[in-house]
Amino acid sequence: MSKINIGIIGLGTVGGGVVNVLMRNHDEITRRAGHEITIVQAAVNSLGRERICPTDHFEVTDDPFAVVNNPDIDVVLELMGGENPARELVLQAIANGKHVVTANKALIALHGNEIFSQAREHGVTVGFEAAVAGGIPIIKAIREGLTANRIGYLAGIINGTGNFILSEMSAKGRAFDDVLSEAQELGYAEADPTFDVEGIDAAHKLCILSSIAFGISLQFEAVYTEGISQLTREDIRFADELGYVIKHLGVARSTDQGIEMRVHPALIPKTQLLANVNGVMNAVLVQGDAVGPTLYCGAGAGAEPTASSVIADLVDVIRDIDSGASGRMPHLAFQSEPSSPLPVLSVEEVVTAYYLRFEVLDKPGSLAEITAIFGNKGISIEALIQKEPESGSSHVPLILLTYKVKEKALNEALKEVEALASVSGSITKIRVETGN
Amino acid sequence: MSKINIGIIGLGTVGGGVVNVLMRNHDEITRRAGHEITIVQAAVNSLGRERICPTDHFEVTDDPFAVVNNPDIDVVLELMGGENPARELVLQAIANGKHVVTANKALIALHGNEIFSQAREHGVTVGFEAAVAGGIPIIKAIREGLTANRIGYLAGIINGTGNFILSEMSAKGRAFDDVLSEAQELGYAEADPTFDVEGIDAAHKLCILSSIAFGISLQFEAVYTEGISQLTREDIRFADELGYVIKHLGVARSTDQGIEMRVHPALIPKTQLLANVNGVMNAVLVQGDAVGPTLYCGAGAGAEPTASSVIADLVDVIRDIDSGASGRMPHLAFQSEPSSPLPVLSVEEVVTAYYLRFEVLDKPGSLAEITAIFGNKGISIEALIQKEPESGSSHVPLILLTYKVKEKALNEALKEVEALASVSGSITKIRVETGN
Repeated sequence: MSKINIGIIGLGTVGGGVVNVLMRNHDEITRRAGHEITIVQAAVNSLGRERICPTDHFEVTDDPFAVVNNPDIDVVLELMGGENPARELVLQAIANGKHVVTANKALIALHGNEIFSQAREHGVTVGFEAAVAGGIPIIKAIREGLTANRIGYLAGIINGTGNFILSEMSAKGRAFDDVLSEAQELGYAEADPTFDVEGIDAAHKLCILSSIAFGISLQFEAVYTEGISQLTREDIRFADELGYVIKHLGVARSTDQGIEMRVHPALIPKTQLLANVNGVMNAVLVQGDAVGPTLYCGAGAGAEPTASSVIADLVDVIRDIDSGASGRMPHLAFQSEPSSPLPVLSVEEVVTAYYLRFEVLDKPGSLAEITAIFGNKGISIEALIQKEPESGSSHVPLILLTYKVKEKALNEALKEVEALASVSGSITKIRVETGN
Repeated sequence: MSKINIGIIGLGTVGGGVVNVLMRNHDEITRRAGHEITIVQAAVNSLGRERICPTDHFEVTDDPFAVVNNPDIDVVLELMGGENPARELVLQAIANGKHVVTANKALIALHGNEIFSQAREHGVTVGFEAAVAGGIPIIKAIREGLTANRIGYLAGIINGTGNFILSEMSAKGRAFDDVLSEAQELGYAEADPTFDVEGIDAAHKLCILSSIAFGISLQFEAVYTEGISQLTREDIRFADELGYVIKHLGVARSTDQGIEMRVHPALIPKTQLLANVNGVMNAVLVQGDAVGPTLYCGAGAGAEPTASSVIADLVDVIRDIDSGASGRMPHLAFQSEPSSPLPVLSVEEVVTAYYLRFEVLDKPGSLAEITAIFGNKGISIEALIQKEPESGSSHVPLILLTYKVKEKALNEALKEVEALASVSGSITKIRVETGN
């Protein structure tokens, strides 16, 4: 049995996990791949640091370009993360005719079009299963498992940090800042949590999922992104009263008008499986016209779940090499030309239901003023909660659940509501996703 | 773009669904496959019958051997079901150098070893994603998406008819026979429901999943199989009181001692996602040592969900043909030699927790006699419910939930319990699955 030689760039959480899993499951992986996998060389940032994996059976360097230029290496695993120098390294590996496997969502979301075009030109494969939803084989499911379908809708809990925070807020009535601190202590959240809690990480992943689902090029800048840092315990509690759970979702939809790509908090009916995915778990709901709704759930991050996807891509590449089938799979699921001509819609064009919370003056007529504005705009109300005032407060929370409406029309109505003397402060607006 | 010519055997629910989806999603599928797919010929049982799909754009014959021997056809879709003549037809297609896609679980479970060996010899692929869990790409997930893992455990709701019946019994307190009749009227259950309700259909699927997960040959006869026709409303209610839902599961586990393969009703904690999969939906939980638990959920049957998997296999085959990679994927996930030497364990060797219901004489001491027997055998009790007697009855139901114990030891204890004068009638024994 011939050997496949790999080089690894980055021996942190993911890289260390890959080494450990390759060693521990050597026999199973070899039986599946049909080839012995040998780690030839690994590049690290700092040579002296302690590692979560053994490093004594391969060469360790602090020059990542040594790995991508190493003539003995067949496949490069790029597990360092970040945009640069990851982009240069991956492009150099491709130029050298090496296959690449990466877990780097920012790299694929921002530079995937360039990278895949180079890979096609050089007849090599770039695997990126680990870039989305950790260990869940979601790229494979959409790109290969659902090829019969026009995919109309997908919605995913694709950031474990955010889901951990919301699950804790929801289960225990805790405040956002409080749970964020705990998540940082537990290592679920970075010291600078912006990427996770402001939805940028989820937007990277949603951009990748959308391209594969709809056959469009990667368009990260077109993803509408809203974080969870503004969510309050009150809104989570009111949502609960109405039969909903609040999750941070990446949502993509294909309509005749165009493609929606958006990351934002959303109310989901409690009865849906997606609403019951808690903690650091990820889940993606994919709706195809033939298959109907399908759900994929698993660990969205962590050393070994991510390693699971990296190695799955590696085995795929080896199966390709073995059968002489390099370039077998179109990276973004569709043969490159012609790409779908559908435009990406602005969030104002999105049609969905809304949860709205106002602070209104506790006097007769406040509610009537608001509902009159909605009625004039043709916006129907599905449910309403009006709370008793807290002692000493002249205002009460008023919660409305609308039926589906175009966001532009809703925003116009909200502008009028905001101008009412009986409404104080800012209006809370959270979209409702019911799964199609 | 060159054309791929296919022949279809069977234009019933699944075959008709395949034709409809291929026509409706022609553009999307062609963009993914990179080739135009042309239906050249289809074989049906009876030429005159009305179909759910158009049949005017291909030749229709009542001789299925005409399809497998047609030199114009590259890929044969075997969608007639049943063991014979499906086996002869598939072997003939393979001998003629044609790739095959089948939705036939009985065929794969019973004759897969022979079929795959022939396919390897002739360098062709036999796709069977549609044979397990309808539209869910579960074969792909395990065979390709989780290749890094030692898979330790899997549990699936893999029969939609059974799940529909149990969901209705559970939600509405209805009796088995009552719901079965409705399922037959709705077309969810066959006139002879034996295959579904006695677990044979689920055993076919479990046998296939186990081979792919553990690298063992297909061993249908080694699957322990128990149906749901004996389940009572009472047990569903008592399970509910204890915090569990009863589902009909296919369970496979790999331990150092051997492989477990078993289909039976099981109590699942309500909090688990699997417990919340209702109606005709299917779901499979797969536990890998690197990835942890992953769950895959979707429609387990029906014309278009099944067509979704058939066409996914077809596109895979076309991607193989296109890149000259026939035989790229080992059918059962592992390179054929050496197959795992692990034996399949008898059900008496299985270690699990149990729900037990006894009818005991309503007098002091009855409980003590039973718990003494369990204590002597080293079987611990996790929970217990003793009911008030119904008026006029001398016996009361006693429900025990045990901790994990080897089934052999449990059966020995139950034999002693059965011999007690204070215990009447037969003992109800249902396994408890907690997901690992």
